[in-house]
Amino acid sequence: MVSDSDIQLARRLADAAGAAIRPFFRQRFEIETKGDNSPVTEADRAAEAAIRALLATERPADGVIGEEYGIDRGDAERVWVLDPIDGTRAFIGGRPIFGTLIALLEAGRPVLGVIDQPISGERWLGATGHPTLFQGAPARTRRCPVIPSALFATTAPWLFDEIGGHWFETLRMRCRDTLLGGDCYNYGLLASGHIDLVVEQGLKLYDFAALVPVVEGAGGRMCDWQGRALGDGSDGRVIAVGDPALADAVLTLFG
Amino acid sequence: MVSDSDIQLARRLADAAGAAIRPFFRQRFEIETKGDNSPVTEADRAAEAAIRALLATERPADGVIGEEYGIDRGDAERVWVLDPIDGTRAFIGGRPIFGTLIALLEAGRPVLGVIDQPISGERWLGATGHPTLFQGAPARTRRCPVIPSALFATTAPWLFDEIGGHWFETLRMRCRDTLLGGDCYNYGLLASGHIDLVVEQGLKLYDFAALVPVVEGAGGRMCDWQGRALGDGSDGRVIAVGDPALADAVLTLFG
Repeated sequence: MVSDSDIQLARRLADAAGAAIRPFFRQRFEIETKGDNSPVTEADRAAEAAIRALLATERPADGVIGEEYGIDRGDAERVWVLDPIDGTRAFIGGRPIFGTLIALLEAGRPVLGVIDQPISGERWLGATGHPTLFQGAPARTRRCPVIPSALFATTAPWLFDEIGGHWFETLRMRCRDTLLGGDCYNYGLLASGHIDLVVEQGLKLYDFAALVPVVEGAGGRMCDWQGRALGDGSDGRVIAVGDPALADAVLTLFG
Repeated sequence: MVSDSDIQLARRLADAAGAAIRPFFRQRFEIETKGDNSPVTEADRAAEAAIRALLATERPADGVIGEEYGIDRGDAERVWVLDPIDGTRAFIGGRPIFGTLIALLEAGRPVLGVIDQPISGERWLGATGHPTLFQGAPARTRRCPVIPSALFATTAPWLFDEIGGHWFETLRMRCRDTLLGGDCYNYGLLASGHIDLVVEQGLKLYDFAALVPVVEGAGGRMCDWQGRALGDGSDGRVIAVGDPALADAVLTLFG
């Protein structure tokens, strides 16, 4: 169960991350390349450290899984899952459409999620049993039950493997239009009814956990490519739709 | 020659376009598909109409070429070239990284250019003989003379033809990193020193004319894939670099 205290804490965590990130945006900073060839900056580390410092004070018994600093108490009943900057490449390039992702998992399932854009000040907050909020007002996905009507977004074609790339190209040819780039921001725009479909592959738990409550609390659906609910055992292949009927259409296509 | 009066007018044109666009952003609006399969919205048309109305009053003898309403007096010595929304797909998807492009051509060469983002209020203004301004302060590109150090951006791989796609993929494999999406906003970020290289194909005069004074006034270079200056006879294949030495490296690669 998500309490008001959890939601208030999630807001404070996002505030702390944003305060850590903003001084680095469009400034000179060190960029390192991690083992998976993805970049990491001082801003990613500062933001995750800021979130972890607050969690250590406020929820010392909860688990924490973060992109930059790994796993603490990962077998706790409640685990906070953090991606301090989702879209580090966009952040490095000066685009204000990266995001801080903060999720709370209970028994391995995301029950609370925040997508925070600290430059524009845009924030989506979703929690089980609550309507998703964008800038404090309810966000709603839009109706789009069929693939040919869908505005489809995904970050980059090369993030798919060969089979995934086939499905990406199939969707691109069938959808009304396709947007590239965007990272987590695509899922926020989906929750607000501007994008209909996001399909991605290779996501880590910290890349997708926060998105699930945001999308589902706005009337959409998220699942893996077999239609299963997402959680800490998922394989990183995700579908997000604004209209749940569109998930059925995509799952039927994927066979 | 670009006068202060030209620059002031360009600012007013961008202000008028932004005022026309903002009411439509993230609202419901009609979307049509044009002959080239690109989308157009009420916002594109309203913004171009607003710019043309001002030009008709302020510069009745100048030519106008616009994406949505075609060519008036295209053989005039001075021609204003307009793309009211560059990145209409991004606009439709609710991303605040599309832009209004306004250029002034003299004898077919761009001498004044504005990239305006009306949601964030970000504006780049470049003019021959003047430093490019971003939010009123000089913008400067950054040093990056070699391809392996470059952050490369382009809107979408499928905007290249087969040969162009080969060069896109070659650059993607050799550059430090690659960002997709972004449209004109990539060139603004290049002028401000956050992106090093943009290579695109299939651009129309109204897609690239405004970018040239912005990039070059910030210390960068724009040219076609043979290294020629861009103007009203260009073939739509463009290279933009923050560091002019990087253009030499890319042109050598392209042979």
